[in-house]
Amino acid sequence: MRRRGHGASDASSSSSVTHPMDTKRRLKIGIAGLGRLGRRHAENLAQRTPRAQLVAACSPVAEELAWAAQQLGIAHCYGEYAAMLADPDVEAVFLVTPTTLHAAQIIEGLEAGKHVFCEKPLSLDIVDCARVQREAAGRPELKVMIGYGRRFDPSYRDAYDKIQAGLIGAPFLVRSQNLDMNDPSGFFVRFAPTSGGIFLDCTVHDIDLARWFLGNPRPLRVFAAGTVAIHTGLREFGDVDNGVATCEFDGGKLACFYASRTMAHGHETATEIFGTGGRLTVGANPRLDRVDISDAHGVRNECTPTFYERFEAAFLHEIAHFVDAVLDDRAPALTLHDATEATRIALALRESLQSRRVIELD
Amino acid sequence: MRRRGHGASDASSSSSVTHPMDTKRRLKIGIAGLGRLGRRHAENLAQRTPRAQLVAACSPVAEELAWAAQQLGIAHCYGEYAAMLADPDVEAVFLVTPTTLHAAQIIEGLEAGKHVFCEKPLSLDIVDCARVQREAAGRPELKVMIGYGRRFDPSYRDAYDKIQAGLIGAPFLVRSQNLDMNDPSGFFVRFAPTSGGIFLDCTVHDIDLARWFLGNPRPLRVFAAGTVAIHTGLREFGDVDNGVATCEFDGGKLACFYASRTMAHGHETATEIFGTGGRLTVGANPRLDRVDISDAHGVRNECTPTFYERFEAAFLHEIAHFVDAVLDDRAPALTLHDATEATRIALALRESLQSRRVIELD
Amino acid sequence: MRRRGHGASDASSSSSVTHPMDTKRRLKIGIAGLGRLGRRHAENLAQRTPRAQLVAACSPVAEELAWAAQQLGIAHCYGEYAAMLADPDVEAVFLVTPTTLHAAQIIEGLEAGKHVFCEKPLSLDIVDCARVQREAAGRPELKVMIGYGRRFDPSYRDAYDKIQAGLIGAPFLVRSQNLDMNDPSGFFVRFAPTSGGIFLDCTVHDIDLARWFLGNPRPLRVFAAGTVAIHTGLREFGDVDNGVATCEFDGGKLACFYASRTMAHGHETATEIFGTGGRLTVGANPRLDRVDISDAHGVRNECTPTFYERFEAAFLHEIAHFVDAVLDDRAPALTLHDATEATRIALALRESLQSRRVIELD
Amino acid sequence: MRRRGHGASDASSSSSVTHPMDTKRRLKIGIAGLGRLGRRHAENLAQRTPRAQLVAACSPVAEELAWAAQQLGIAHCYGEYAAMLADPDVEAVFLVTPTTLHAAQIIEGLEAGKHVFCEKPLSLDIVDCARVQREAAGRPELKVMIGYGRRFDPSYRDAYDKIQAGLIGAPFLVRSQNLDMNDPSGFFVRFAPTSGGIFLDCTVHDIDLARWFLGNPRPLRVFAAGTVAIHTGLREFGDVDNGVATCEFDGGKLACFYASRTMAHGHETATEIFGTGGRLTVGANPRLDRVDISDAHGVRNECTPTFYERFEAAFLHEIAHFVDAVLDDRAPALTLHDATEATRIALALRESLQSRRVIELD
Repeated sequence: MRRRGHGASDASSSSSVTHPMDTKRRLKIGIAGLGRLGRRHAENLAQRTPRAQLVAACSPVAEELAWAAQQLGIAHCYGEYAAMLADPDVEAVFLVTPTTLHAAQIIEGLEAGKHVFCEKPLSLDIVDCARVQREAAGRPELKVMIGYGRRFDPSYRDAYDKIQAGLIGAPFLVRSQNLDMNDPSGFFVRFAPTSGGIFLDCTVHDIDLARWFLGNPRPLRVFAAGTVAIHTGLREFGDVDNGVATCEFDGGKLACFYASRTMAHGHETATEIFGTGGRLTVGANPRLDRVDISDAHGVRNECTPTFYERFEAAFLHEIAHFVDAVLDDRAPALTLHDATEATRIALALRESLQSRRVIELD
Repeated sequence: MRRRGHGASDASSSSSVTHPMDTKRRLKIGIAGLGRLGRRHAENLAQRTPRAQLVAACSPVAEELAWAAQQLGIAHCYGEYAAMLADPDVEAVFLVTPTTLHAAQIIEGLEAGKHVFCEKPLSLDIVDCARVQREAAGRPELKVMIGYGRRFDPSYRDAYDKIQAGLIGAPFLVRSQNLDMNDPSGFFVRFAPTSGGIFLDCTVHDIDLARWFLGNPRPLRVFAAGTVAIHTGLREFGDVDNGVATCEFDGGKLACFYASRTMAHGHETATEIFGTGGRLTVGANPRLDRVDISDAHGVRNECTPTFYERFEAAFLHEIAHFVDAVLDDRAPALTLHDATEATRIALALRESLQSRRVIELD
Repeated sequence: MRRRGHGASDASSSSSVTHPMDTKRRLKIGIAGLGRLGRRHAENLAQRTPRAQLVAACSPVAEELAWAAQQLGIAHCYGEYAAMLADPDVEAVFLVTPTTLHAAQIIEGLEAGKHVFCEKPLSLDIVDCARVQREAAGRPELKVMIGYGRRFDPSYRDAYDKIQAGLIGAPFLVRSQNLDMNDPSGFFVRFAPTSGGIFLDCTVHDIDLARWFLGNPRPLRVFAAGTVAIHTGLREFGDVDNGVATCEFDGGKLACFYASRTMAHGHETATEIFGTGGRLTVGANPRLDRVDISDAHGVRNECTPTFYERFEAAFLHEIAHFVDAVLDDRAPALTLHDATEATRIALALRESLQSRRVIELD
Repeated sequence: MRRRGHGASDASSSSSVTHPMDTKRRLKIGIAGLGRLGRRHAENLAQRTPRAQLVAACSPVAEELAWAAQQLGIAHCYGEYAAMLADPDVEAVFLVTPTTLHAAQIIEGLEAGKHVFCEKPLSLDIVDCARVQREAAGRPELKVMIGYGRRFDPSYRDAYDKIQAGLIGAPFLVRSQNLDMNDPSGFFVRFAPTSGGIFLDCTVHDIDLARWFLGNPRPLRVFAAGTVAIHTGLREFGDVDNGVATCEFDGGKLACFYASRTMAHGHETATEIFGTGGRLTVGANPRLDRVDISDAHGVRNECTPTFYERFEAAFLHEIAHFVDAVLDDRAPALTLHDATEATRIALALRESLQSRRVIELD
């Protein structure tokens, strides 16, 4: 049977969109962080999320707040996170801040009685992850979700649904990769001291996907390796611009990862799920759109330049899912345990890369 | 040079979305027609078009109006078009009504001082097309646009931009097709008496695309042929379920068309533009999303079941373009002359199909 | 069920190869014509056709004969066709000569008691076609076959077998194209006076494929159009460098053709067969091999530069089929009637192109 | 610049084919082993290798020898390898025998003064590899080559040439996989006691490709993991039906491998080579041929069922390369050191799989 599926161009047909609008209530949100990704989230919250209302923004950068006020018409702009938390109009906070701040800001948000959405990863420190889980467990009336957005991409969702329907039998191996277009300016080299390294910055997404597709198995051991192909500046931070890794889970399940900063053709996120009855591949060709060019270079297609173009729809669905969870009082699909496991495995990958040993988990 | 392009999943990044929201003004729209496509337009207007406000709806079917009131929260529901036109709150009307009503309803809308968006085709009658053009010319302060939505699809737009940039030299041949998945219930057979036949119902889109890509050349002659492969009920209307056609334009430009109602795999709209320096293809594989399946059937991808899944983003961009044109007082990209030419060529195709002769235009 | 099929790289697994070699007998062949394609045939006959022996060659060009003697070790080299026909060692002749000579040379070959393989097209003159058919009918012990090689390509053969097996229901429309890479030196412009024009030179292949896939229906009428996109020198011969055409057959069957001399990306032969239950496409991407390149141009593959690289395997299978037919005394799959019909329809296309009218056949 | 490349269907255009046949001398070969692959080699040697002559065959199975005599017309058939080696007519031997016999048979062949071609792998024992290398070094007039056939596939060769030409900058990572279609009869389970396990049976090919593309770097350490997804009978041999592995080389070069016995769609050999300036992919879609099917399953293509259909051309080129090396007294491209390294790394992978540790090489 052919489902009447959501297409590649299906950017907004989330459940909230087709949800009966029997109530006019919209969730009032304050955003913290208006950098590159923060601005995208702010635009999406302000203009493309029917059940949300972006009422406040917070940033230490005056120009960013000016932009939010003028372009998005946001009334309440704050230089400090604490001030935004004190705003009684704000029901939920959206954290698009540096990873090092995540744990503390989530906890402060909870303490202020706000629902919290926070960009991935939860933290680079497993102790912080545990603390956030504890705090959240103590406030079951508040929703907390970490932004592992690939799960909300229509293609990844389609793959997940097909697996649940048994299309490929029992899944046993996930191979997943997060390849970024080379940035000659080396932005991520400057970002290296705080990013946690390539596995915590990029591969956490693939780890989350592997756990999701494999049914959340318990990780047993990992091995990672890497190389500096172009950006020698990474060496002083013990980081690499290309890293590969293997993770064994219980029940004979496996995952292989690859992350790169040095692609020539664009951003390519791709995942294969192998099952006893077949394989699914998501993103085999990171095509920009449905155009093919036939010229002196052969037959070709352009590619998505960054993760944002690739996952624009996923970002919208992700926000809508969180907003629905709050308004309809349902648990978000992604738990804090999921986010903790992604950090835990990624930390083991980094340790393996640096020690050149197998790292046993547990 | 690689542009930072709009992706396949780019459903809403229209100009209106990134438009500085320096004014809060939203265009107040009334929709006429709440059938299958009408409901989609109504949802898009109500929930996914930031600069629009759907304030009224009109339908002879009570259930449809009830749906609009309950699901979309529309305050003003009318059983008659004239009543909606009399509503002073309505600034623009959106016509998703039977083609036979288009010309009269556009003219009535203009006479009531409303801007008008009308689904394609403008009319099945070239005299009506001329009358609408005259009426609109007499009211230059009102915007009128016919919904040839493919022009607003991100991939078609990308192809157009590449051609304008000279990527394929001088374009001289367009091949374009509109293939629909077979509907065993034969909806379009019942629709045949009023649809105008396959060329006026489907190929008008391809005609519009060909004119757009080739620079609006003057058509010289056409030849069409067709066959009834499955739906024998079409024969009594002189219609076919598969039709092919050739159109010669001046300047040595050519277009070839194919329309079908009988595909097994899904809806497939595809267009090739051949130039002296290369070729662009839009929609070579009508893939549903980015998932590939490897199983006993080989390596495969599912397809968009209908035009709606394929063009969901195009519908949003199209609406936003019209709304922007009205609010910012700019001429819509698509003129009534474009719409008239599409009808004129499609009528010649039908005449050729039925007479088995070459039809000279002019 | 999955067949153990012949792969894309299956250059030589013709029936002759797997044929039980119960007899050592090899067919002794003389080739006439050692131009570009003639040399390829000569090499194939001499080195890659197990059941054939190339014993003689004929050419008016001394260097070509010297090449045949030295490179292929051919003992008997002739400056005149009549002399080769007089060679009692020659059992069959292989004609790779100008089209204008085909009919006479085939008849002379038959009169000399030789089996004849002749490159397409049979002739540019329908009267000559009839004469050849008559002569051949009078000598049923001799095999005659015209080289419509696409039928012997593994992919085209696979498509044919799938259609015979009912995979796509009843086929009703074939779209087929023969696109050549632009040759800035304009070889075919110099060739234009004798080639018969683009439809007789190129589209005959597509006509033959359409008849084959559609079950040899009777052609009713054709319409053709064309343009000179680059090679203005063609105008004086009434020829074009891009031509499109439609052919209606009885039983509601249709074919659409496209031939071009001006592609930037390579040679592309592609054919779609539409049936009531599905569609087959052969050659959607004219990829050179299994390599994809991901670089600043996007994701791309190189293309087959000429028809020879595309159909290298087909040429071998075609030869083997002819040799088997002679040695095993079986009728070749391709009849002289097939070759005559291809010429007859192509002539009608040319007439339509030049008269801008529909041409009725019969 | 576009090369006039060898196409996907280019099964035989090896150097031997286009080689000036200034001498009629053909290499006289005796084959040992007429099992599934042995028969293919025998047919290729007898019928499709212009410069070779298959003069003898050896097998312990009477029916196999009868087949060789009747179908291939081989005069000298032997039940014992020693007897074939004593045949003075045999200049070279072709070993398609069980791996456990390879080393001894190669050495015996050399001692008998024969050139030797032997199927991969050289041996499962690194001591045997060294012994063969020593013996061969003592007889520099004799050519010895191990059949790592992928190097002779036109697509892999194209990728190699592109890398040598600098198309992707400096290569630093190879990912390569050898996926076999699931055989419900479990042939390889019965074969498990002598195959050496999945890495020695399958991944040796990928190891050889990785070394070739990366410039033969020195391996430093490996890690492997695996699972039994379907064929539980493998457990008693310490083998798996799906295995993944990572190999670090000096100079920061990396390779990742995957081997599987359980695919639903066919045989898929695929390799990616990542360089500082781009990526090449060989075999992204294991398509059977150039046919695409559009039906209720979507848009799809069938796949090569086994490695033989995929590498039919490679087998021919490989043989031709060896025959040329002998007749023209040139060193084969593939050295015994290459074959030894493939075995050495594969043994380390197996050790890692079974010990769950990183294995250091050297």
